[in-house]
Amino acid sequence: MAEDVYVGIDVGGTKVLAGVVDNRGRILRTVHRATPGRRVDVSIVEDALTEALGELVGDGVVRGVGLAAAGFVDVTGERVMFAPHLPWVDSPVRARLEERWQVPVALENDATATAHAEATYGAASGVEDAVVVTLGTGIGGGIILGRQVHRGANGMAGEFGHIQVVPGGAACECGGHGCWEQYASGNALVRFAREGLGTRPSILEELCEGNPSALTGPMVTRAAEEGDLLAHEAFGQVGDWLGVGLANLVAALDPGILVVGGGVSAAGDRLLEPARTALLSSLVGAGHRTVPPLVVARFGAQAGLVGAADLARQRVARLALQPPRGGPG
Amino acid sequence: MAEDVYVGIDVGGTKVLAGVVDNRGRILRTVHRATPGRRVDVSIVEDALTEALGELVGDGVVRGVGLAAAGFVDVTGERVMFAPHLPWVDSPVRARLEERWQVPVALENDATATAHAEATYGAASGVEDAVVVTLGTGIGGGIILGRQVHRGANGMAGEFGHIQVVPGGAACECGGHGCWEQYASGNALVRFAREGLGTRPSILEELCEGNPSALTGPMVTRAAEEGDLLAHEAFGQVGDWLGVGLANLVAALDPGILVVGGGVSAAGDRLLEPARTALLSSLVGAGHRTVPPLVVARFGAQAGLVGAADLARQRVARLALQPPRGGPG
Repeated sequence: MAEDVYVGIDVGGTKVLAGVVDNRGRILRTVHRATPGRRVDVSIVEDALTEALGELVGDGVVRGVGLAAAGFVDVTGERVMFAPHLPWVDSPVRARLEERWQVPVALENDATATAHAEATYGAASGVEDAVVVTLGTGIGGGIILGRQVHRGANGMAGEFGHIQVVPGGAACECGGHGCWEQYASGNALVRFAREGLGTRPSILEELCEGNPSALTGPMVTRAAEEGDLLAHEAFGQVGDWLGVGLANLVAALDPGILVVGGGVSAAGDRLLEPARTALLSSLVGAGHRTVPPLVVARFGAQAGLVGAADLARQRVARLALQPPRGGPG
Repeated sequence: MAEDVYVGIDVGGTKVLAGVVDNRGRILRTVHRATPGRRVDVSIVEDALTEALGELVGDGVVRGVGLAAAGFVDVTGERVMFAPHLPWVDSPVRARLEERWQVPVALENDATATAHAEATYGAASGVEDAVVVTLGTGIGGGIILGRQVHRGANGMAGEFGHIQVVPGGAACECGGHGCWEQYASGNALVRFAREGLGTRPSILEELCEGNPSALTGPMVTRAAEEGDLLAHEAFGQVGDWLGVGLANLVAALDPGILVVGGGVSAAGDRLLEPARTALLSSLVGAGHRTVPPLVVARFGAQAGLVGAADLARQRVARLALQPPRGGPG
């Protein structure tokens, strides 16, 4: 393995994606496997990460590993506090994996790692302040201020998905109602398409074999690509809510750019055009300000691992600056 | 006039409030007068500021003047771009007043100056990241990050009042609908009380002499102080919406403290208790994080002038660091 490469591992609710990343944010190779699930012992998940790492680097030397986890990571980057789809609960994951792998390990929330990747090498690089929103099953996010990710007092800044946009609206897994991620996410796309079934002819009827509850995001994407109107409308609804919510974030933060990543962002302008329209019409003082450009993230679904690898690089650099322990080296 | 004092002038839609402030944020004396209005020439407003300054300092020496204006100030702090209640439009206010007064002048948006005052000398001093919300006729605000006010790409960060909280909700002066300031502000307090008139006995009927459109914020405050249930409920509704909106800001920013200022904040716990309840029940992951304390601002209606005076102090300090123009001094 080359000298200046690091490994990033993104562990989500369904998939572990690991990759070797160079010092310009380029992914040299990746491996992936299924996430063992939430109801298993943490050791099962950590074994899976270890296997992925082994498959990726073999007998090569690893300088550092970054872990991007789909869960709440404490502000010191030591512990996973809680993860809806993973077994860790208030668990010192960073130190345990560092001990196991005998290599410097960095730990970060996956959306924060994504924002870090886009700020460092991606769509927000060179911009002072940015908002990064990742649309997957739900909404994740990160705030870039002064070219650094803003983590907040608890390390929980950027939880945009649970901003309430509709009082008493759709029920959310968080226990609340009307959260933004119920209106602008992969789940929302499927719900909007499902609600439209039967109101007009659509190839979605065929794709889901007449069973609305079998409808999936990839089906809606495929139908939209084939020109299906109902699928287009579902993307339009998601895009509209995306723009409304982004207008709220722009009113609060006034960033220089808006970056949209995550699986749903692969739809590109089908999603972003209605979002831009809604952003312009919802944003206060749009005539008296520069409205930030709304762009697709560079790294897509690989941003988490790219960001995690770079955070590992930063950790190794910091460790190199510290005086050696145990006397003069 | 003592050596190390500066003048702050807060120019709002109805009132000009000017004060002399020492280097610990203490107000030594103030003067005020009515704002001439929006439909006059800018020179009339600037004459009024000049008179207030003269009345305040007489023949004394002024080291610097800070102006906090109720309008959009550009990111360089040079121009008032637009102000709903003042005549300036894209106007180089800072340089013109500096020329006229022959003293260093700093210019800032009033809510940003308020946030600066609270971060430097007030309720948020010593806290790394804070959100400051000012409740008056509408909602203003400021974001403190790393103990500094975050201004944003256009200098327009902190426009919390126009975050949409109710799709298709109450019409707002900004042209939008359902803006937060239509639900958590002095105007909202009056509207909620007015909507309740006739549904139960209330001394508000008497106070407004049977004319609901004559109802004012001070009447609702007085009624609440006298134990009037309807007035209490109106404060409860405003407090509830305040908490819901603050939960959104905490989800996004994860600050260490929430500071509420402006005229409506004088209600104290009558407003903040329902807000704390709503914040706790609306905030995602409240069980897995430190929920930020929600406190009243220190400076109340005088925060703008205190912040402006301190920004003038900072400007003078910066100017002192620059090499003199025109050769060796």
